[in-house]
Amino acid sequence: MTDGRVSPGFARTVLQQCVHARLQVKPAEGESIPEWVEIERGMVIYICFFKGATEDIIPKMVSTLLQVKLCEADSGKLVSVLDLPGSILIVPQATLGGKTKGRGMQYHGNIGKEEGLQLYASFVSQCEKELGSSSKCTEAGVVVKHGTYGSRQVLKLDTNGPYTHLIEF
Amino acid sequence: MTDGRVSPGFARTVLQQCVHARLQVKPAEGESIPEWVEIERGMVIYICFFKGATEDIIPKMVSTLLQVKLCEADSGKLVSVLDLPGSILIVPQATLGGKTKGRGMQYHGNIGKEEGLQLYASFVSQCEKELGSSSKCTEAGVVVKHGTYGSRQVLKLDTNGPYTHLIEF
Repeated sequence: MTDGRVSPGFARTVLQQCVHARLQVKPAEGESIPEWVEIERGMVIYICFFKGATEDIIPKMVSTLLQVKLCEADSGKLVSVLDLPGSILIVPQATLGGKTKGRGMQYHGNIGKEEGLQLYASFVSQCEKELGSSSKCTEAGVVVKHGTYGSRQVLKLDTNGPYTHLIEF
Repeated sequence: MTDGRVSPGFARTVLQQCVHARLQVKPAEGESIPEWVEIERGMVIYICFFKGATEDIIPKMVSTLLQVKLCEADSGKLVSVLDLPGSILIVPQATLGGKTKGRGMQYHGNIGKEEGLQLYASFVSQCEKELGSSSKCTEAGVVVKHGTYGSRQVLKLDTNGPYTHLIEF
């Protein structure tokens, strides 16, 4: 077991490409039905912050994740989500910070809840800003949607090949 | 960018819990319709091998992944996929070995195709053996399904919280 080999930086992201994705942002409560957000073609970003992460890393994360060429255009060529243009679904995923210990998982490297929430909110808003400032994106009507930090993330994902990538910061 | 911080070991796996998952194992060709495999409740294992990986690591990988407590039982308690018992969908995912270089991804650390195929086949068969030797699993009728190494992996995933984990070996 070499979980120790994954030396945490400040943030871990897993990216999957989708043709449709749907995330529950509010569970059913009493008589109320659950609330969902959804996107069509684009990218799902699962994100987890580690202890020591600060606001400084967010701009670099956003620019890397939104500009790396991982999306398949109709031509078959790989382009960024901004160039596709595609929508983005951001899923807070604290479990990504886990390390095996015996048969269980430990999350000791994860950032505290308050700080994590702040960084998450900042990441979401900078993604929204980036998409909003691209005329290609606004004309195409693509959107940024996101899960609720600290809640269970109930996800339905439909892909044309998830093309899963790991990018750490 | 600190992609260099993810120092590859011999294999990288990403795990997601599902209530239903469906993977295309043969695309449509001419008049033929695509072929799919599917599982109900259980775990999706995305797997990628790096250069230097050998047969020796497979038993440890299988025992770790099948015994780590990541599955939520009806009681809410976390148990292993063998104890759930749940089915397993293995998805070969070479993209997991990527590192950013500028705006693109490079896969120089990935194992060669022939060796990768051999390790993948061995991983699948050892997972099948492990499930097959658990009377709890065979009585419950849970199964191991898997994608086709080297092909595009078209996946549909339905979760009750994907609860995404990264485990490296």
